[in-house]
Amino acid sequence: MATFRLYGFWRSMATYRVRVALNLKGVAVEEVALDLNAGDQLAPEFLAVNPEGAVPALVEEGRPALTQSTAILEYLEERFPEPPLLPADLEGRARVRSLSALVISDTHPLIVPRVHAYLAGEGGFDTTRFRAWASHWIGRGFSALETRLARDEATGVFCHGDTVTFADLCLASLAVPGKTLGFDLSPYPTVARIAACCEDLDAFARAHPRLQAGAPPG
Amino acid sequence: MATFRLYGFWRSMATYRVRVALNLKGVAVEEVALDLNAGDQLAPEFLAVNPEGAVPALVEEGRPALTQSTAILEYLEERFPEPPLLPADLEGRARVRSLSALVISDTHPLIVPRVHAYLAGEGGFDTTRFRAWASHWIGRGFSALETRLARDEATGVFCHGDTVTFADLCLASLAVPGKTLGFDLSPYPTVARIAACCEDLDAFARAHPRLQAGAPPG
Repeated sequence: MATFRLYGFWRSMATYRVRVALNLKGVAVEEVALDLNAGDQLAPEFLAVNPEGAVPALVEEGRPALTQSTAILEYLEERFPEPPLLPADLEGRARVRSLSALVISDTHPLIVPRVHAYLAGEGGFDTTRFRAWASHWIGRGFSALETRLARDEATGVFCHGDTVTFADLCLASLAVPGKTLGFDLSPYPTVARIAACCEDLDAFARAHPRLQAGAPPG
Repeated sequence: MATFRLYGFWRSMATYRVRVALNLKGVAVEEVALDLNAGDQLAPEFLAVNPEGAVPALVEEGRPALTQSTAILEYLEERFPEPPLLPADLEGRARVRSLSALVISDTHPLIVPRVHAYLAGEGGFDTTRFRAWASHWIGRGFSALETRLARDEATGVFCHGDTVTFADLCLASLAVPGKTLGFDLSPYPTVARIAACCEDLDAFARAHPRLQAGAPPG
């Protein structure tokens, strides 16, 4: 088994998605905890790994670093096909990737630390206004997921049938910060049900932000 | 050849990416022009196609609508493999997907109409402040692309070697609105060079926003 290093941050949603995928596929990994609040991602040593200065980055000795959670998930699926995290049929794959993009592209990028920094600085947003902004986009993301999942018979125990796919990793990665913000999931019963099913699985439980190096106690 | 309908908007970056891919793969498509400024995306007939109320949506008679440009691109690649828009090797595929995500996830979601609407409303941004916001994120996107493309020997005539990949569609989709905003690409010479190579290709030229139904004259 290859040995990977995963550069991450305890509460990064994107790192969480990759951490869960590595756990599900049983890939041995050593996680290197950066502190994004302290600016570790802008240190020259890390910029040599990922010039974007963003986590996660997945590195295997002697190979170029893999970056961007979407690309890393697809890589892991191609390199370690078992257990599959994408359906076998074309339309199922498109549905799972679309649900995933709803989180990765439509929602998550609006609440990352660099956006917070801009809005708190140039944007003149105080904490209350930033929380309203974050809640707006997280709520919109949950609402869109709920509408799609609730009306589609392809939804099962998980987002797509009864086995875990990329879409569940993404849904769970949004539910975790949602809870941190005190978000009430009850208007989104299908999302809440699937998030609970994910949390029951060891691969998700072990990936929880609170259990990672660098997380504050309590 | 299957007949597809592409629900799009003339200046949508995500629609542009899909339009170029369809052109490259020679897939026959009829484009249905929505007017996002008039709220066409929220009409019940379109919400029945895509409950997210977002373009693009790609529909083939009797099959579920495909949504989210990432998912649509991957679907087209799997269904119509020629010409390939992803490299054959795992690491090349991961590099192309990562460069693509830099646009699709890190940059584009910050400048879409719904974000503009929030910042102009609750955010209290006037036109000048929104343009500063948009320029900030587009500039950051170009800068990150430039840093990665310029230092990596995998870069060729295009983002990855000498043939077009997803990454070029994404780069071009950012260069087009960049130009509309009067963005100076000269600090990003590799990005500018690749964008020009794309514009020379018929599949990109035909997809240009200004040539689509609904575009204002001139």
